[in-house]
Amino acid sequence: MEKDCNNASVEVMSNKQVIYREKVRGSLKETNLKVKTSLERPKADKDSGTIAVKNLYLACEPYNLHLIKYFTRLGSPVPGYGVARVLESGHPNFKKGDLVWGMTRWEEYSLITAPETCFKIEHTDVPLSYYTGLLGMPGLTAYAGFFEVCSPKKGDNVFISVASGAVGQLVGQFAKLFGCYVVGSTGSKERVDLLKNKFGFDDAFNFKEELDLDAALKRCFPKGIDIYFENFGGKMLDAVLLNMKFHGRITVCGMVSQYNLERHEGIHNLINLVLKRVRMEGFVESDYYHIYPKFLEMVLPQIKEGKIVPVEDIVEGLENSPAALVGVFSGRNVGKQMVVVSRE
Amino acid sequence: MEKDCNNASVEVMSNKQVIYREKVRGSLKETNLKVKTSLERPKADKDSGTIAVKNLYLACEPYNLHLIKYFTRLGSPVPGYGVARVLESGHPNFKKGDLVWGMTRWEEYSLITAPETCFKIEHTDVPLSYYTGLLGMPGLTAYAGFFEVCSPKKGDNVFISVASGAVGQLVGQFAKLFGCYVVGSTGSKERVDLLKNKFGFDDAFNFKEELDLDAALKRCFPKGIDIYFENFGGKMLDAVLLNMKFHGRITVCGMVSQYNLERHEGIHNLINLVLKRVRMEGFVESDYYHIYPKFLEMVLPQIKEGKIVPVEDIVEGLENSPAALVGVFSGRNVGKQMVVVSRE
Repeated sequence: MEKDCNNASVEVMSNKQVIYREKVRGSLKETNLKVKTSLERPKADKDSGTIAVKNLYLACEPYNLHLIKYFTRLGSPVPGYGVARVLESGHPNFKKGDLVWGMTRWEEYSLITAPETCFKIEHTDVPLSYYTGLLGMPGLTAYAGFFEVCSPKKGDNVFISVASGAVGQLVGQFAKLFGCYVVGSTGSKERVDLLKNKFGFDDAFNFKEELDLDAALKRCFPKGIDIYFENFGGKMLDAVLLNMKFHGRITVCGMVSQYNLERHEGIHNLINLVLKRVRMEGFVESDYYHIYPKFLEMVLPQIKEGKIVPVEDIVEGLENSPAALVGVFSGRNVGKQMVVVSRE
Repeated sequence: MEKDCNNASVEVMSNKQVIYREKVRGSLKETNLKVKTSLERPKADKDSGTIAVKNLYLACEPYNLHLIKYFTRLGSPVPGYGVARVLESGHPNFKKGDLVWGMTRWEEYSLITAPETCFKIEHTDVPLSYYTGLLGMPGLTAYAGFFEVCSPKKGDNVFISVASGAVGQLVGQFAKLFGCYVVGSTGSKERVDLLKNKFGFDDAFNFKEELDLDAALKRCFPKGIDIYFENFGGKMLDAVLLNMKFHGRITVCGMVSQYNLERHEGIHNLINLVLKRVRMEGFVESDYYHIYPKFLEMVLPQIKEGKIVPVEDIVEGLENSPAALVGVFSGRNVGKQMVVVSRE
């Protein structure tokens, strides 16, 4: 609220936004994005099937770049997952004041045109920011990817790349709780420590310090890998293919090392899919929305008992989000990167 | 039989063999192999668990090169599948006179040290040579690969590379009988005609005449591919990855275009596994030996009714087998390449 010249209260209807300004070529740069303030806020008309929300927390992750590159027009706000408060509802399932998580945009206020894809937040006895991570898309991704796609068995040797990322750290913790041997790769000494000491991985290595990824994997898995949870792509995938066990599974969640490249690196060792009878399968968490309640039922008690530990890297303010997103690709963050838009 | 100086009959115990002479570098050349005559024939001692056989027909296929490169010592005869007659048995499951098919070597007489992996031929009312193709490893490969790995549904769009090869021609015929739309790629006009007119494929193209494989696939599959039966690898796989439908399946049987390369070509489009939630799975027919009786039960009546048609390319004599194998990689053969060692 500000005061007008007559000292009456008027609401300034501004809306700070992070806009996709300039086509991404090669790596994402801060200049591809622009923070600007619009003087309009979205409205959700009655029976429009839409909801107008105030964004509170935004996930800041490689998936944002994927969405930018493939699904965002220049001049539009960056899309991504977030936690928001409903301000106006034109949809029968939502009412003013509801908390939701789902696909929104990087701005203070958003109009969500397909709120059916959002989840209402019922459990508020955990930090709301968790719904951008552990209890949101990364959590469901880790759960569905590991339990529904990897076909895990107790005692399996599990390797996870980008292991300290939002999804990787959870896959590792789920796999440990399930009784697997778990090793992760990540990009700094600090993160290696996090994996081993905070997330309970059996082993971890800094891929930037390994001259020979094949040798690193052979050191960690002398008997080979049963499950590879693929977040990285490129040379790591090629090295993993040389180290898979018979009937191993590679679950492809993403290939973050490749998103900044005009053309993805070539993978040369796919013949190992035949030699080792390996199944490699891509998946997207949105195919698993129906198991979200089952997931919450498993994970909420584990959070409360301290068995699952999220680590968040929190940035305050939309204006700092472009740098935070660029930082995700250079490995600046430790744990799940998240942007606070408003603490209400 | 020859006569000795006393005019008595003596058996000349020679054994013509095709030896792996020189390490394959780059493409297979005839000079990598050598035909020689040994003066010894193998014996199967009583209770040795082995059988001594006379080889009758040998499969001549890309898999032989795979076996040569990865599993054959210099100086040893080339391994491969074949049909043979048991001459001596030291194994309780076999007796003199039995016909078998399984892993043998490119020579007139072989000692099979693991005859458990051979199948006894019970049905001799079809040509014996079929057991190197339709009723042998390629048949079981096509059957297991299509029905057990591809998860086919009626109406699926199926694409097969190396479609006129021993396996491809059968996958196509199985898929057509199952009610799929089937397109094959192959390497000559003659073979395209074979696919369309003899094997009943819905469409086929000569990949050597397509400047843009992606465009060729889009022309044949405007709505995309549900199942890709991968025999080729390299650029074809990369183009297919751009054309898969959501939840498509890629069954990797082999990558024949790559076996002659020191380093396999890079595959750049694997991110489509995620974008389209595609499953890519390698398999080896030896994991499916247990379904061989079920396979025979299906396929024998279809052969007799003329619903499944094998096309064989027959070469006479072991001495011509090195050229025949080189020819398989240059696309010389039409249909399943096979070598007759002896018609008994």
